[in-house]
Amino acid sequence: MLKAEKTKELSYTKPFSFFQIDHFGFHEDGTFKQRYLLSDKYWHQPGGPILFYTGNEGDITWFCNNTGFMWEVAKELGAMLIFAEHRYYGESMPFGEASYSDSKHLNYLTSEQALADFAVLIKNLKSTIPGAQQSPVIAIGGSYGGMLAAWFRMKYPNIVVGALAASAPIWQFPGLVPCGAFHKTVTQDFAKSGYNCEVNIRKSWSAINNISSTASGLEWLSVEFSLCDSLKNKNDVVSFKNWLQETWVNLAMVDYPYEANFLQPLPRWPIQVVCKYLSMDSTASEKRLLSGVSQAAKVYYNYTGSSSCLNISQTATGSLGVLGWFYQACTEMVMPMCTDGVNDMFEPEEWNFQAFSDECKSMFGVRPRADWAEVVYGGKDISAHSNIIFSNGGLDPWSAGGVTHNISESLVSILIPDGAHHLDLRYSNNLDPPTVRVARALEIKYFKEWIKKQKRAHRSHLNSRL
Amino acid sequence: MLKAEKTKELSYTKPFSFFQIDHFGFHEDGTFKQRYLLSDKYWHQPGGPILFYTGNEGDITWFCNNTGFMWEVAKELGAMLIFAEHRYYGESMPFGEASYSDSKHLNYLTSEQALADFAVLIKNLKSTIPGAQQSPVIAIGGSYGGMLAAWFRMKYPNIVVGALAASAPIWQFPGLVPCGAFHKTVTQDFAKSGYNCEVNIRKSWSAINNISSTASGLEWLSVEFSLCDSLKNKNDVVSFKNWLQETWVNLAMVDYPYEANFLQPLPRWPIQVVCKYLSMDSTASEKRLLSGVSQAAKVYYNYTGSSSCLNISQTATGSLGVLGWFYQACTEMVMPMCTDGVNDMFEPEEWNFQAFSDECKSMFGVRPRADWAEVVYGGKDISAHSNIIFSNGGLDPWSAGGVTHNISESLVSILIPDGAHHLDLRYSNNLDPPTVRVARALEIKYFKEWIKKQKRAHRSHLNSRL
Repeated sequence: MLKAEKTKELSYTKPFSFFQIDHFGFHEDGTFKQRYLLSDKYWHQPGGPILFYTGNEGDITWFCNNTGFMWEVAKELGAMLIFAEHRYYGESMPFGEASYSDSKHLNYLTSEQALADFAVLIKNLKSTIPGAQQSPVIAIGGSYGGMLAAWFRMKYPNIVVGALAASAPIWQFPGLVPCGAFHKTVTQDFAKSGYNCEVNIRKSWSAINNISSTASGLEWLSVEFSLCDSLKNKNDVVSFKNWLQETWVNLAMVDYPYEANFLQPLPRWPIQVVCKYLSMDSTASEKRLLSGVSQAAKVYYNYTGSSSCLNISQTATGSLGVLGWFYQACTEMVMPMCTDGVNDMFEPEEWNFQAFSDECKSMFGVRPRADWAEVVYGGKDISAHSNIIFSNGGLDPWSAGGVTHNISESLVSILIPDGAHHLDLRYSNNLDPPTVRVARALEIKYFKEWIKKQKRAHRSHLNSRL
Repeated sequence: MLKAEKTKELSYTKPFSFFQIDHFGFHEDGTFKQRYLLSDKYWHQPGGPILFYTGNEGDITWFCNNTGFMWEVAKELGAMLIFAEHRYYGESMPFGEASYSDSKHLNYLTSEQALADFAVLIKNLKSTIPGAQQSPVIAIGGSYGGMLAAWFRMKYPNIVVGALAASAPIWQFPGLVPCGAFHKTVTQDFAKSGYNCEVNIRKSWSAINNISSTASGLEWLSVEFSLCDSLKNKNDVVSFKNWLQETWVNLAMVDYPYEANFLQPLPRWPIQVVCKYLSMDSTASEKRLLSGVSQAAKVYYNYTGSSSCLNISQTATGSLGVLGWFYQACTEMVMPMCTDGVNDMFEPEEWNFQAFSDECKSMFGVRPRADWAEVVYGGKDISAHSNIIFSNGGLDPWSAGGVTHNISESLVSILIPDGAHHLDLRYSNNLDPPTVRVARALEIKYFKEWIKKQKRAHRSHLNSRL
């Protein structure tokens, strides 16, 4: 049984607000209902701060439940909490069920439109909620939501006084970081979590290739891994290997120091648990090796013991909008990834933009614009901005595309060496390593500074008008 | 004869570049040819700065010819000059002749799209022109072009190190400044330019109303003003008064201290010349008064003596894209204006958003979004930005919506008390008042600081990589 996540404090209202479907054009003048969650339980009004979660690619209630940090900070700062759902995810569908039907309907799924939604939402709430007009707003987000938080502060410093961008790979764009860095970090996590663990995963790919070359081998693999659908041909084997690769990547993301249920229900330090099954020495047979891989995979997919079989078409919670995110990757969020099998434990695969672009074209009818994100969000040239915390976990593969050094006095990096994907945004836990405790304390210190500065600016503005 | 404007230095190439029609969506994947003018005559390469004119609502060659300041500064700083044309103006038509055909084709005429064009253009030029890669870029613009320059620095500080926003009314949006301030400034210009001048213009409206109430009066007015098309009915009289009002407004904008040809060919200090015809005392008859108004208007419309009649459907150079600008005002650039006849010399007219919106709907099929500009460009809350000079002329009615006080050490205001609309952007002239000379010197001082800072940052970046 998993330890239950704290949920007792999670009471919120679930209002909707109407937004322009297109903030950047006037021909499409329709509006849609955007969902957001609001809790004023701890809010000191008038003027208490607002912590605003810049929702990312999924159901906002899921992010709300996995961002306990905000609930704890709300108590400490007397803050209102708002979790805003990203358009095209969860219940915030611009065209209802037709939203994903074609490139015409998907046209308004962009980060710029989402940021504009957030800006308009805050403007509206501040003008309608009594006591909120002067409330300083801080943007908080993790992963893509962290990128949005950082970009929100960059593009709308009039709306938010600062941002916490947790595990936000704002540099995972073409030409900014090496395409292999991400999988290298994954590999390091496995290398340090158990004897021979990384080595055996690296060896597993050729073992799979060898064994899957015969019909009986395919059958053996399907049974050994308890697959819901048996592997039938080479294409299935490619999917199978991709699924395994994604499994290792996801484990690196959620290598938390305590039992948790983010992408999947998992034990504490799950990679260490996984690696116990992958410590065989070099004399082990291929079948023995793959049996270990199977047991390792089942730690990830069946920790609770409730799965009767493994489904290679799913690797994580259904609360994430996989299709929407793929569309975003196929348009502006172009994030090159590659592997070489030497610096990482995966089969070598180059980054092939043309092939990716063709896949996008056939899937969505659109082609990615590889350079746009750097132009619009500044790439490495972000020093003109201010009041952004970039926190990154040393275990998190996304840290490879993150900001891991201070850029200026107010664009700061916080490193959590033994943290996985935005560990700092989770509820505090007795098993938290000291580094994440320090990180959270530092984050709160910055929040307080931003709030104080804003209140001082507001007072001096009032005085100058007297 | 008008003194010829200096043109000898204006030699430039006229390349085109291809840009996405829609930077913010992927369904419309077409591109269009955007025009820009480039002069590297004075450019010190490698690394010499780039002065980039953020083109506004008109033919870019016209702005180029009226921005002599940039040519003078280029010489002093060893700078490359680029004048980029704004989409939907001049020759930069996304859909050729169909660009203005309906709201679908007009959909991509927004300031955000124009800024994205500029950003992509600079990115492209820096990667293709040898020696330009490290060149610091400074955005310069006047009027709406000045707003774009300021917004460009706010939204793309990765692309431009600073901006000169000359006569840029970035606060002429709903709720930010009183709607009557603009026409009050116009009125003050006339009040101080001649005895009784403002008083007589204020009286002229009722005189027109009285005289135009009879058919013979209409005929008299048409002849007296040498109108190309006689006034026939009340609607014509309304148009006639609007045309006159716009004439006074335009005169306030171009009240330059020397002969110039910006909106029209005009004498030096044209309002003083105009006011000579408007100094009659209170005993003058209505016809006598309106004769004076007619002579005054002819200073503006027929200084060269080449017009055989006056056309009340045009008030300024044809180089400005009036229809495009009206579309922009009907969408995001909502600028409330009002008159009361007391603080100004015009017939009282309230700001009526609903009527304006209805007019937009019938004309373009779109409705304005009154609050958007403040949300997206920050309204009064712009203190988080840096390196923007807001210059304003005390005679210029647009200064009423401009930034006329320092906001921070690097968001500075420069006032030119006896300057009209972006006088500082024009060629220097022997008749320039000292205040504009000081303004230009200060602007260049800031340019040099920005350039120096950027070069220093670049050097320390290089050193840190060694």
